[in-house]
Amino acid sequence: MIGRCSLLLLLFACSTLAAQSNDEEMKYAIVIHGGAGGDPSGWSVEYRQQRRDGLQAALERGVEMLARGDSAVDVVEHVVRIMEDDPAFNAGRGCVLNEAGNHELDASIMDGSNLQCGAVGSVSRIKNPISLARKVMTDTRHVLLIGEGADQFGEGSGLEIADASYFQTDRQRKNWEDWKQRHTDVSALQPEENYFGTVGCVARDQRGDLAAATSTGGLMGKRWGRVGDSPIIGAGNYADNRTCAVSGTGIGEEFIRHHLAADIAAQMRYAGADLQTAADRAIARLPADGGGVIAVDQAGNTVVQFNTVGMSHAYADSQGQQVIKLSRQE
Amino acid sequence: MIGRCSLLLLLFACSTLAAQSNDEEMKYAIVIHGGAGGDPSGWSVEYRQQRRDGLQAALERGVEMLARGDSAVDVVEHVVRIMEDDPAFNAGRGCVLNEAGNHELDASIMDGSNLQCGAVGSVSRIKNPISLARKVMTDTRHVLLIGEGADQFGEGSGLEIADASYFQTDRQRKNWEDWKQRHTDVSALQPEENYFGTVGCVARDQRGDLAAATSTGGLMGKRWGRVGDSPIIGAGNYADNRTCAVSGTGIGEEFIRHHLAADIAAQMRYAGADLQTAADRAIARLPADGGGVIAVDQAGNTVVQFNTVGMSHAYADSQGQQVIKLSRQE
Repeated sequence: MIGRCSLLLLLFACSTLAAQSNDEEMKYAIVIHGGAGGDPSGWSVEYRQQRRDGLQAALERGVEMLARGDSAVDVVEHVVRIMEDDPAFNAGRGCVLNEAGNHELDASIMDGSNLQCGAVGSVSRIKNPISLARKVMTDTRHVLLIGEGADQFGEGSGLEIADASYFQTDRQRKNWEDWKQRHTDVSALQPEENYFGTVGCVARDQRGDLAAATSTGGLMGKRWGRVGDSPIIGAGNYADNRTCAVSGTGIGEEFIRHHLAADIAAQMRYAGADLQTAADRAIARLPADGGGVIAVDQAGNTVVQFNTVGMSHAYADSQGQQVIKLSRQE
Repeated sequence: MIGRCSLLLLLFACSTLAAQSNDEEMKYAIVIHGGAGGDPSGWSVEYRQQRRDGLQAALERGVEMLARGDSAVDVVEHVVRIMEDDPAFNAGRGCVLNEAGNHELDASIMDGSNLQCGAVGSVSRIKNPISLARKVMTDTRHVLLIGEGADQFGEGSGLEIADASYFQTDRQRKNWEDWKQRHTDVSALQPEENYFGTVGCVARDQRGDLAAATSTGGLMGKRWGRVGDSPIIGAGNYADNRTCAVSGTGIGEEFIRHHLAADIAAQMRYAGADLQTAADRAIARLPADGGGVIAVDQAGNTVVQFNTVGMSHAYADSQGQQVIKLSRQE
């Protein structure tokens, strides 16, 4: 009698679990961000719409790729390319300009299934720095290439090239001129404008693999070949199937100091923290208005956390969840 | 009676602890490395002696500074300067040359008492890259400056400059010519020679503060502006008073992928691992012949761990311990 009962209970339990599993199984999840710089309430209606449209287009393409079974690493590269091509974001076309009025782009990508990664810093001639970072990952034994050498490698790899007139939009030229007028003494060490922005994407694909990609034009008016956290694996970008995939945006120096993206993974791996707790603790280490992160874990849980006024972000998953926002409120 | 017994026991316990504390109190500890590249048994007697002499001179200066109460961050900068100036090591003068026969130097420094850090990548005109990294830490809001911009910043900061004839020694020019002859087709993606080396120093000062400094000429024959782990905070260098200070040497890409220096700190912080266990686990993640680390924790425990044939290293502390070695055996 007891044996039959147990068997029945077991069968019931199994079928319940199976049903739950079918219902609740997370096939895929994706989060993107378009940077944490600026206060969206101060933006024009048109620019806010541009941002939302940009987020939507990138998100929809990512969802489409994930739904048909593409790999997380393909998805994050492709989605970030779309945002690099969109002049509404500080990455690729439409990036901010450095002190001399030139563009210098940083990007990195990481495949959580094998910890392969690639990154580029201060490049200026390859149309999509994120694809250059991926070429570094797949076609070299290196992780980080910088400057002229990185551009040369990209040209030799057959990647699409672009010139200054492509990257430097009228809007950012105007922003730079405004910045320049307010900073006539460029020899002094002055605090940079709180003008940063980045784009990023993290994804969990149908196989359960994670990946992260991040790309940026850096800080308005940056000098001396300053490189932020975006091309620094473990700081602004990290992915490891055992824990999570993370992309950050904010004051890059703080992300480097706290190796922020890898710290979220380390909290999960070593302290058993869940993704939300780990991300909350990591952001709590940043100074006020320091930045934010997007993240996804192996179970498809997604997190968006920031301590800035705004952070353009969007997320979606195979269970039909879809959100597009410029800040917590809107 | 019980009360008196307890009091006596308590007094005895206290005096024992106090005596132990006086005996065993660690005033300071220092570890240095001169790189994990090459097999010391294949080196000439003269070069082995040069290495040992270089390690001894750097170590003795570090001990002298720590004994008189200097700060850990001053000590690690100064000790690494000595090793940069010594042509027996791949950092500063005597560095390896890149594919084009030029020198490109990387360095970073971190102060564990406040998590301040500075780093430079691909610089070529400042005599001591570690001091340039420290200037980035103290005189800018940035962490990482690269290339021409970083050199310009250093020149403007009044740091000593040096030209190619200073950095490029006859020995390394000869090594590069040998390398070049064996690599005539530079357009192909060939595995680099297993020719890397770095110098580093970690210290715990009398106040209990930790610091780490790392400097390198990178990989022989490197191209495309390749940057390794030495200027990447969290990869080849990290210091945090709450856990440890770490400097690494080896295949930089693997150190970046595993954010190795910060991972040792994270294991201590989140998993409660001791320094030796954390370092052992971290090195176990590297491929064979991947490299090594030196580390010190807040209690002054020191660790030297590597999976290469050799790693020039030395350590000393206020309890009179002093070791200088080129590998485990000699």
